[in-house]
Amino acid sequence: MLVDPYGVIRAYLGPWPAHLLVEIDPAVTEMVRATIPVVRHRRREVFDRWSLMCRMRITVLGGLGAFPDRDQGCSGYLLRHDGFTMLIDPGYATLQPLLTRCAPGDVDAVVVTHGHPDHCADLHPLLRARALSGGAVQPLPLYAPAGALDAVLALDSHDVLNGAYRVHELPLPGDVICGPLTVATMPVPHFLPNAGLRITAGRTSVVYTGDGGPHEPFAEFAGGAGLLIAEATYATEVPAPQAGRLSTAADAGALAALAGAAALWLTHVWPGSDPDAHLAAARRAYAGPSNVAVPNLTWISPT
Amino acid sequence: MLVDPYGVIRAYLGPWPAHLLVEIDPAVTEMVRATIPVVRHRRREVFDRWSLMCRMRITVLGGLGAFPDRDQGCSGYLLRHDGFTMLIDPGYATLQPLLTRCAPGDVDAVVVTHGHPDHCADLHPLLRARALSGGAVQPLPLYAPAGALDAVLALDSHDVLNGAYRVHELPLPGDVICGPLTVATMPVPHFLPNAGLRITAGRTSVVYTGDGGPHEPFAEFAGGAGLLIAEATYATEVPAPQAGRLSTAADAGALAALAGAAALWLTHVWPGSDPDAHLAAARRAYAGPSNVAVPNLTWISPT
Repeated sequence: MLVDPYGVIRAYLGPWPAHLLVEIDPAVTEMVRATIPVVRHRRREVFDRWSLMCRMRITVLGGLGAFPDRDQGCSGYLLRHDGFTMLIDPGYATLQPLLTRCAPGDVDAVVVTHGHPDHCADLHPLLRARALSGGAVQPLPLYAPAGALDAVLALDSHDVLNGAYRVHELPLPGDVICGPLTVATMPVPHFLPNAGLRITAGRTSVVYTGDGGPHEPFAEFAGGAGLLIAEATYATEVPAPQAGRLSTAADAGALAALAGAAALWLTHVWPGSDPDAHLAAARRAYAGPSNVAVPNLTWISPT
Repeated sequence: MLVDPYGVIRAYLGPWPAHLLVEIDPAVTEMVRATIPVVRHRRREVFDRWSLMCRMRITVLGGLGAFPDRDQGCSGYLLRHDGFTMLIDPGYATLQPLLTRCAPGDVDAVVVTHGHPDHCADLHPLLRARALSGGAVQPLPLYAPAGALDAVLALDSHDVLNGAYRVHELPLPGDVICGPLTVATMPVPHFLPNAGLRITAGRTSVVYTGDGGPHEPFAEFAGGAGLLIAEATYATEVPAPQAGRLSTAADAGALAALAGAAALWLTHVWPGSDPDAHLAAARRAYAGPSNVAVPNLTWISPT
């Protein structure tokens, strides 16, 4: 018997955004199809599970700044929403944590805040894995500020990765649509052009500073975020040569409070730092739930 | 009381090569100094331990070709001899296995066979860790064929890694002296200039093909190696587009037999391959001990 899985979902979740009818992942479609017999008998339970799966969730792949240590890589976040998988800032040593969670071909889009390799180096082995694993994989859409990926993509001659990706310039400021997600950007002062991000689906937003010094307009940009991921390289003081281009955990706490963020992750922590000092500095300004970003830390949108 | 640790060592090991008197690592000197009281009472035991430590040893950091999987990185080998630490081919996802064995500043030299990122990508985070960790670290000598490291070194603007390395062109063919080791090269046909390596100290040699198709003169170059590390991307057949530029485990076994190598490692195995098929193919030609390269596999020179 042929069934329309969207029809079943619509019956429980109400109107279905048109773009999802084309963007939805085949694996999700299959899962929905498999749940249909259960739906008929256990409507409430299936509704709850499906509803949870549709929520936005984001998982840390690595949270160190500058360079990895033996246990943890640099910046990297895996965001999933409605069967869409977005990789944000695939920095050094984030590919293997990614591969414990999905196959190379499962990634639907990559967003990179800026061109430093602690934010984009592991894009390269991901593209190699997609290009050389055999089987047909769509070109991976890569969103980044102009030129940010030039160096990392030059690690191979063009023919090795031919057709494995498509670069889209991330406007600064501006916004782009990635599957079911809207990605809005605001430039944040750093050594290279750096895109602060606000990623939104429905009423849920995750905001990420990328790397950058304190920037007053960012509080409004981050207003009401469900989760604020804020660069906090140092606990309370940025050394003079980096002042204005990097932030502290104290800055991150102040930003989270001003923005009214519902939760805060401190990230890009300098290797060897004491995470308790970072948390203490942030909590002096921000009373909400806060964590230092470490691999596997996961946030799920409450609604 | 001031003592001369070299004098104590000389008494047990005989004449000491002059270059070691300047090249020896301060940590080793300190260790020797600490063993002196023990030496006085337990001469034989200390002699045995010291003698073992002086042997050449090499450890696999990763053994996959092309791209990493979730469990293992690409080509990477850590060679130690007489307190000297050489990193060979720091491919994708080999930095963290390296850091479980030594600190970034402990590496004395890096040798790269060719410029593909599965053989050199993780050089970059190693240099960042050395440059940005604080403390004085000597510029790291990097030995590679002309231009092979240009792309990976371009991942940062020059000022970030300023003074963190010094590039030395690896002559093809030719040889260079790295601390207590002599590195001889022979070009092996690949998509880029690729240096087959013969690394020698005293009567001990480790030979590594880098990546490359079967090359008849290489058997003589590898003659009598204590260990032959041979690229064996496929078990028995190289697909047509790569023929002559990559090798099989069958080729590797034939090479080991012709060269009279005392042991064989099969490396650069295509992700997802069956290691048993590789071993079986090599063993049809080579009767000595053979292994597929996996992280932590270690060879110690028998003398």
